[in-house]
Amino acid sequence: MQEIRVGLLGLGTVGSGVVTIIEDHQDRLMHQIGCPVKITKVLVQNPTKERGVQLPQDILTTNASDILENKEIDIVIEVMGGVNQTREYILQALRNGKHVVTANKDLMAAYGTELLAVAKEHQCDLFYEASVAGGIPILRSIVDGLSSDRITKMMGIVNGTTNFILTKMSQEGKAYDDVLKEAQELGFAEADPTSDVEGLDAARKMTILATLGFSTNVELADVKVKGITSITEEDLAYSKNLGYTMKLIGLAKRDGDKLEVGVEPTLLPNAHPLASVQNEFNAIYVYGAAVGETMFYGPGAGSLPTATSVVSDLVAVMKNMRLGVNGNSAVSPQYPKVLKSEDEVMAKYFLRLHVRDEVGVFARITSLFSEYNASFERIIQMPLEERGTAEIVLVTHRAVLADYNKLLQKLEGLDVVKSIKASYRIEGDAR
Amino acid sequence: MQEIRVGLLGLGTVGSGVVTIIEDHQDRLMHQIGCPVKITKVLVQNPTKERGVQLPQDILTTNASDILENKEIDIVIEVMGGVNQTREYILQALRNGKHVVTANKDLMAAYGTELLAVAKEHQCDLFYEASVAGGIPILRSIVDGLSSDRITKMMGIVNGTTNFILTKMSQEGKAYDDVLKEAQELGFAEADPTSDVEGLDAARKMTILATLGFSTNVELADVKVKGITSITEEDLAYSKNLGYTMKLIGLAKRDGDKLEVGVEPTLLPNAHPLASVQNEFNAIYVYGAAVGETMFYGPGAGSLPTATSVVSDLVAVMKNMRLGVNGNSAVSPQYPKVLKSEDEVMAKYFLRLHVRDEVGVFARITSLFSEYNASFERIIQMPLEERGTAEIVLVTHRAVLADYNKLLQKLEGLDVVKSIKASYRIEGDAR
Repeated sequence: MQEIRVGLLGLGTVGSGVVTIIEDHQDRLMHQIGCPVKITKVLVQNPTKERGVQLPQDILTTNASDILENKEIDIVIEVMGGVNQTREYILQALRNGKHVVTANKDLMAAYGTELLAVAKEHQCDLFYEASVAGGIPILRSIVDGLSSDRITKMMGIVNGTTNFILTKMSQEGKAYDDVLKEAQELGFAEADPTSDVEGLDAARKMTILATLGFSTNVELADVKVKGITSITEEDLAYSKNLGYTMKLIGLAKRDGDKLEVGVEPTLLPNAHPLASVQNEFNAIYVYGAAVGETMFYGPGAGSLPTATSVVSDLVAVMKNMRLGVNGNSAVSPQYPKVLKSEDEVMAKYFLRLHVRDEVGVFARITSLFSEYNASFERIIQMPLEERGTAEIVLVTHRAVLADYNKLLQKLEGLDVVKSIKASYRIEGDAR
Repeated sequence: MQEIRVGLLGLGTVGSGVVTIIEDHQDRLMHQIGCPVKITKVLVQNPTKERGVQLPQDILTTNASDILENKEIDIVIEVMGGVNQTREYILQALRNGKHVVTANKDLMAAYGTELLAVAKEHQCDLFYEASVAGGIPILRSIVDGLSSDRITKMMGIVNGTTNFILTKMSQEGKAYDDVLKEAQELGFAEADPTSDVEGLDAARKMTILATLGFSTNVELADVKVKGITSITEEDLAYSKNLGYTMKLIGLAKRDGDKLEVGVEPTLLPNAHPLASVQNEFNAIYVYGAAVGETMFYGPGAGSLPTATSVVSDLVAVMKNMRLGVNGNSAVSPQYPKVLKSEDEVMAKYFLRLHVRDEVGVFARITSLFSEYNASFERIIQMPLEERGTAEIVLVTHRAVLADYNKLLQKLEGLDVVKSIKASYRIEGDAR
């Protein structure tokens, strides 16, 4: 093998990072693979645009076929983003016998199973470490490091934007809108932050994680999603008082053969390893039947961290090429997917209510709780400035979600309850 | 391939865990490897001893040759511990073409380079994930997950016993001896805790980590070691006051081509990811030039966590067997080893002194500091109950270690200084 030739689809922030790392680490790559790596062609929209990296002009192309149909190219790295067009490109590359490395979570969440099957069929590698948590080698750790274990629970802080916002809100007592604006100014949130703050980005990553970790075919539609836009300073202040930290948590849980996958603002006990993950950092907490608790922490995004995962995947492909064993890494889903119903989900909840500040209110709420098999372990009640209104904050014991939802409905309809201000799941308490 | 046959050297806590996992997860292993795994022979000292796992009596043997010379056995798992005899066994296994998985840090720290070379020569795999941090897949993450990056710093809490002791001392304000006794009663410390509390166990793990992470041949003798036995409640109280957490940290650092590897009690800012690693848990913080900060957290010991890593290594060997690519994983050290001298090590320090409580003392100390190019960023001074004595606690700015050591010597000799009570390195402050 004289030289391995790589085609790059896209030359944005991650693509530039990939070029930088391949150039800077040519010696180390040589040592690991035994031959040089060369970026042969790069697909861009505008070849004359100024970029952070210098590449000879004749390497840039606006025609994808120059890469996908190029017999000289062994490996295609996809860092252009997007779904439909990109899916076509990757299929074309795989069908032409090219190995693919992608950082594209949207694509892998939607079409991962299909693409992996096509890769296998053509004895090609398709690696996607960078799609879940930027620089954290989490997919490898699940597939190889914990290969002998049965993973029963994964909890992820897999979106840096929302973690940054919640950290600032919590540390500085500021309102959501103010912190979002700050995050946008600092480049930690996009101009249109919807996909991040509504939890969709995290949901895509949890789709990929759950599919791999539970060896079953989890789809985006299976993931229940709730974002962070309605979290208030009051909720955060009470959480702190009660010894909890608010995080946007992607939860994938398996009890017996039944699964539950969701993304929602969740309260964690302060001592939980995920509670101290701050600012834009990501972390994935993995619970295995044999290994117990592990956690993987690092940057979830950024040009160089993400490119590190991409190039590490590239190294894996090249090692496989040297050994002639490409296309063997993907393990097809082993188990049928059975999702839990709301009758089977159990959790503790944090509930904040505004009620009429009068005699007997508490008794009525209490009796409603016992009607729905819910009980509470902690209560805070205090009068508000608003005349005649009291605020009640409850931490429930573990309750069945279906019951809890009915309870919320009934509380909503109770004349003494003015409004339900907030309800959050609590996870990670001592089992 | 009809069946893969495994011989086990040792059937203690980790060995029993390996048997349990292989039995419990036979289905999952089948799915990953495509054939059954069978434990064929187990070397034990006493075949009639009661154990936690049930194995047919004819599988147990007291004769190592039944495994090492057994043509039916493909893979040897070494979980018996010890160094010299064990080294002989592993060499014999490798020379007979058997792949080896070991959990033995003492052995790998002392003879890893030799054993890996022999393995390569015989096209055998030699995996040792469990040797560093029980259930944390850290070696894989360094070799594969961060393969494209240049690691510049690793900080590890790699000894569960000492982390348990320091956590309890810090949380409960108890003395070292009392907490050690408690740890022994709970099974978190051995009857003879020397190897743990003096930092030797951690030093062996750092030897393995540094060799792998820096791709150079680090030996145990290169690691500067200081244990936790002289840490006092006063030190922990001051640390807390100053916003630091005390941990026994294994540090492996690279500046340019020069290395520094050591184990010592170290103060970390409370916000550092390692600072919240509590009790018997381990974690390894890895700083890569491109990826930035990552951390890997989990159980550092225990029967099932350690066995999880062993069986995950076993799965890797078996996958390689299926593909016919054993003996290709080890990357031989790439760089010559150059260790930093004390003139090249820079750090911040925490220093606690007892001095005469009289006019002019502080000025003399200050002038000694500037004589040795050291300055301080924080000072606490308070009178002690002991008449005429004051306690001074200093946090220095970054200083050259050689200078700092000379400064300590000079302080020791100063008539106004009654004694130097403690000196600790500080790491992990904002760069």
